[in-house]
Amino acid sequence: MSDATVTDLLRKPSSRRRFLRDGGLLAVIAGAACKAAPKAAAALAQSPSGQTGGTMGPNDTSSRASATAAADAMDAMHEKGIKAFPAKTAGLGNQRLAPNVVDGVKVFELTAKKIQWETEPGHLVEAWSYNDQVPGPQIRVREGDRVRVILHNQLPESTSIHFHGLELPNAMDGVPFITQPPVKPGQSFTYEFVVPNAGSHMYHSHHDSAKQVGLGLLGAFIVEPTVRSVHDDPDVDEVLILNDGAHGYTFNGKSFPATQPLVAKLGQKLRIRFMNEGMMIHPMHLHGMHMTIIAKDGWPVPAPWKCDTLNVAPGERWDVMVNCTNPGTWAFHCHILPHAESEHGMYGMVTALVVNK
Amino acid sequence: MSDATVTDLLRKPSSRRRFLRDGGLLAVIAGAACKAAPKAAAALAQSPSGQTGGTMGPNDTSSRASATAAADAMDAMHEKGIKAFPAKTAGLGNQRLAPNVVDGVKVFELTAKKIQWETEPGHLVEAWSYNDQVPGPQIRVREGDRVRVILHNQLPESTSIHFHGLELPNAMDGVPFITQPPVKPGQSFTYEFVVPNAGSHMYHSHHDSAKQVGLGLLGAFIVEPTVRSVHDDPDVDEVLILNDGAHGYTFNGKSFPATQPLVAKLGQKLRIRFMNEGMMIHPMHLHGMHMTIIAKDGWPVPAPWKCDTLNVAPGERWDVMVNCTNPGTWAFHCHILPHAESEHGMYGMVTALVVNK
Amino acid sequence: MSDATVTDLLRKPSSRRRFLRDGGLLAVIAGAACKAAPKAAAALAQSPSGQTGGTMGPNDTSSRASATAAADAMDAMHEKGIKAFPAKTAGLGNQRLAPNVVDGVKVFELTAKKIQWETEPGHLVEAWSYNDQVPGPQIRVREGDRVRVILHNQLPESTSIHFHGLELPNAMDGVPFITQPPVKPGQSFTYEFVVPNAGSHMYHSHHDSAKQVGLGLLGAFIVEPTVRSVHDDPDVDEVLILNDGAHGYTFNGKSFPATQPLVAKLGQKLRIRFMNEGMMIHPMHLHGMHMTIIAKDGWPVPAPWKCDTLNVAPGERWDVMVNCTNPGTWAFHCHILPHAESEHGMYGMVTALVVNK
Repeated sequence: MSDATVTDLLRKPSSRRRFLRDGGLLAVIAGAACKAAPKAAAALAQSPSGQTGGTMGPNDTSSRASATAAADAMDAMHEKGIKAFPAKTAGLGNQRLAPNVVDGVKVFELTAKKIQWETEPGHLVEAWSYNDQVPGPQIRVREGDRVRVILHNQLPESTSIHFHGLELPNAMDGVPFITQPPVKPGQSFTYEFVVPNAGSHMYHSHHDSAKQVGLGLLGAFIVEPTVRSVHDDPDVDEVLILNDGAHGYTFNGKSFPATQPLVAKLGQKLRIRFMNEGMMIHPMHLHGMHMTIIAKDGWPVPAPWKCDTLNVAPGERWDVMVNCTNPGTWAFHCHILPHAESEHGMYGMVTALVVNK
Repeated sequence: MSDATVTDLLRKPSSRRRFLRDGGLLAVIAGAACKAAPKAAAALAQSPSGQTGGTMGPNDTSSRASATAAADAMDAMHEKGIKAFPAKTAGLGNQRLAPNVVDGVKVFELTAKKIQWETEPGHLVEAWSYNDQVPGPQIRVREGDRVRVILHNQLPESTSIHFHGLELPNAMDGVPFITQPPVKPGQSFTYEFVVPNAGSHMYHSHHDSAKQVGLGLLGAFIVEPTVRSVHDDPDVDEVLILNDGAHGYTFNGKSFPATQPLVAKLGQKLRIRFMNEGMMIHPMHLHGMHMTIIAKDGWPVPAPWKCDTLNVAPGERWDVMVNCTNPGTWAFHCHILPHAESEHGMYGMVTALVVNK
Repeated sequence: MSDATVTDLLRKPSSRRRFLRDGGLLAVIAGAACKAAPKAAAALAQSPSGQTGGTMGPNDTSSRASATAAADAMDAMHEKGIKAFPAKTAGLGNQRLAPNVVDGVKVFELTAKKIQWETEPGHLVEAWSYNDQVPGPQIRVREGDRVRVILHNQLPESTSIHFHGLELPNAMDGVPFITQPPVKPGQSFTYEFVVPNAGSHMYHSHHDSAKQVGLGLLGAFIVEPTVRSVHDDPDVDEVLILNDGAHGYTFNGKSFPATQPLVAKLGQKLRIRFMNEGMMIHPMHLHGMHMTIIAKDGWPVPAPWKCDTLNVAPGERWDVMVNCTNPGTWAFHCHILPHAESEHGMYGMVTALVVNK
C-alpha cells in the first residue's frame, strides 16, 4: 500500500456515520434489536463510571484549553457512537429459516431480489438479498438430511447458488456453464441433495459473484454432525459473517453501532462461527478472553489452539470456543484499525461480547 | 480499502479478457495444451446439460424481457470464457528441467532474458524469464544431491538467484552485496551446493526483486526426501504458482481461460504444491472435495488439518493432498472474488480440478 | 488490487531513502546503535568478497556497454544501502523499561507525547510516542506480578491504553466509553492489575487508534511465565514489531538500512517475538534457517510447526525459535517484495540475522 493510500485511509471521514441518537443505549439494548439481557445494557452503561481500579489523576499544569476543547469535540463523537450501540436499524439478517418438511425432505425457498438495506441508522444501501435479508437466512440442517433449496431469481441478472464447503454431487455445485445453466431473471432452480459433511459452511452466488456476493447474496449453511463432540452443545452459538464490499465493513450485514452484541452469562461456553464473505482479511480481536480454535472450514482441527486475534481470510470459516469467564462488556473488532475506527469514532467492524454476571 | 477502491474493483472491466474463441473446448482439452484425458473434456462439455438432480422451473410471471436480454448478453460472455477453457496459448511454464549429470553433479542452466509471454489468448506481456518460461523450469532433485545451477544473465539489469527455503551455505544464498556480487548483464554465475533439506521450495531473483519477480524470474525448486512418507508417491503431483504482478492474476504464468486444469482419476491421490510469488494473499478454494494440509514451506506439519479454502501468503508454500473421491469438473480458484471473476466472466485465478470416472 | 495500483507500487520511487553514507558499516555496527559483536560487522563486510563456492563467469559476447552502465548505476544504489546497514539514527525504541517497585508493585510511567522520530538517516517524521520512543519502551514482567502503569497524556488528543492480549478486569481494558473515560490532554490515568496470563503481548492506544497507533503509540508487553518451558530461556530473545502506517514500513520503528540486525553465535537458540501493529499482513521470511512456531498470541501452540515464511496479520503475535546453526549474515524481510525493495535498493521491512562463528 502506498503512503498516499495509507494517508487516505487515516484521513478518510467516515461519511456514513451518523450519530443521530444519544443515550439510547439502555432502551435499545433491552428492545427488539437486542437478543439478550437487560444486564448487558446495565453493564455497558455503568462501566465508564462504575469501574474499579483505574484512577484519573488531575490535569497537569501544561494542559491547554484549546487542545482540550478539540479533544472534547472528538470525544463527544466517539461517545455518541458507543452510546448508540446496539443501534436499531430496519431489517436483521442471518435469521434461522425453518424448513417445510415434504416427504421427509427439508425444503428451503430462497428468493433473490433487490432491496434497500439499512447498514447503520439512516444509511440505506442497495442490496441483493435472499428473502429480504443480508446475510440471507441461516440454514441449519443435520448431516445426512435430504435438503431441497429452491432458488427464485427476481434479480435483473442471472444467478446461481454455490454451497461453499459442502461436498455435493457435481450437478449441485452451482457454477454456471460448468455444473448447471445460469438461473435467468424470473426463473427458479431447485437444488437437492443429501447433506454430506458437517460444519460451518456458506451459500452464495457463483455468478458475477464479485458483484453479487458483495451486494449481499450470501448466507450461513450450518450442518450439525451426527456424531457430536463436546463443542456441539455450547450455551451460546453465534455466526459472525464478515463482509467488506459495497456495503462497507459489516458484521452480519450491519456496521457499528448497528452491529449486534454477543451476549453470554458468566461461565457459559460460547461458540463463534466466523465466515468471511469479503475481499480482504479481517484479523478478529476479542478483548478480555481468548478463543480456542476448534474447526477450520467445518473440519475439526486435530490440535485445538488458542489466540486472541484470529486472521480470517476470504472464503474461510473458523469455529472457536470462548469460555466466558471474565465479566463485562468487551470490545470485539477487526484489528485492521481503519476497518474499526476513524477520527469520528468506532465504526464498521466493531461489536462487543457482553458477559453478564 | 476505501469504498472508492472497492467500487473500482467491482466496476473494473477486465480489459485483458478476449473471448475470441467459442466451443473450442473439446479440441483444446484433448490437444497439446492439455496434459490429460479426453475424458476431462467430455466431463466438462457434458456437465451443463448432463447434470442430474437440478431442475429449472418455468419463468415466473414477473420476468421482464429487457432484464432477460441484458442477462443473456452477460451470460454469453461468461459462457464463452468457460467454453474456451483450457485455452491454448504460446508457451508453457513450470516444465520439468532434466539436469546434465557431470561427475555426479546435477547441472542445471538457467538463462534469464526478456521475452514476450502470452498469459491468455491474444494477450502478450513483457516477461523476464528463465529459459523462456514463466514460471521458470521446474527443478526437481533429491535431498543430498550435489547440484550446480548456472545462471546466464541476458537481462538489461543485474540479477541473482535466491533458493527460497533451502538452507544453503551463506555464499550460495543469492543476495547481492550480502552474499555475492550482483550478476551483471552478460555475466554468468554458478551456484553449487549439496541439497540440504527436502520439500517444496522456490528459486527467484533477489535483486530489484519487486520488479524482477513480478515480471517472471521465479520457479519451483522441489526436493524429494530421502526418507519417504505416504505422501511422497501421490498418483498426481502438481505445482501451482500464484502470481499477481505485472502479468495480472496468474496460476503458473497463465490467466483463465488459459490456465491448465488439474486432472485425476476417481480414487487417485493428488498432491498440490501451492507457492505464492506475488504481493497479495490468495485464499485458494477447491470445490467438491477438501484438502489435507501436509507441509508448510517444505516442512511436514505435525498434525495435518483439513480445509477447503487455504490462505496462501507471499513467499509461502503449502503442500496439500486431495483424495479425488468426487467425480466431475470442479471450480478451483482464489476466493478474493475480484481476482477470479468480473462482470465479463471468470478470469485470472481460476482453474478446475477434473476428476474422471 | 488493480493493475494501476500494482504498477504504482513497482514504479514508486522510494523518496525516503537517502544513501548519504557509504562504507560506514564497520564503524556503525561496532558502535552505539548496534547491540552486538564486531564479528557481525566483519561477517557482513567480508561476505561479498569472502564467499566460497560461487563462481562468476566471464561476460558473454552479447553484453552491451549501455545496459551495463545502467545496471552499474542501479547496483551502486543497492550497494550503498547494504553498506550503510545498520545505519545510525537518533533514537531507539523498544528499550526495556525498569519499573519502580513501590510496596511490591511494579510501577511503570508512560508519557504520551508528540516528537520528531528518525526512521532512517535524515528522514524525520512526526511521531506520537511513549517516553520518546517508537515503539514505546518494552515492559517485561512476570505472571502474577502486581503492575501499575501510569499514563500521562501530553498529546493534543485524548488517549487510553489497551493491554492487547492480557485478560484483565474489565475496568482496566482501556476502551474509552466502554471501560473508562478517555484520558484528556494534560490528564493522567493509572492502570493497576495482577498480571493474569503469560506471553508476548502489546500495549497501545485504543482511542482514535487508527491514527494514534499508526503514529507510534504502541509497545511490547511481555509476561514471563511462572512455569517455565524449554523455550523460556533462549540465548537471545528479540522482539520484532512490524508497522506500516504513517512512518512507512518499519521494524521496531526503523526502516532499512536503519533497522537493527539480530545477532547470535553459532549454535545459540534465538527466540523472536513478532508483533504486528500495522494495517497489513507481513509474511516474514528468514533466509538460511527455519523457524519453529512455539506460541500464538502468547499461548503455546499444542504442536509446534516449522516454516521459513510466517504470515503475521495485524494484532497477531507469533513466537518462534531459531536454532542458529548456519553461520553468516542472512537477509530477513517481509516477503511482500514492495515492502522490502524498490529499484533504488532494499528499504523498509528488511533486516538481517547475523550468526557469528
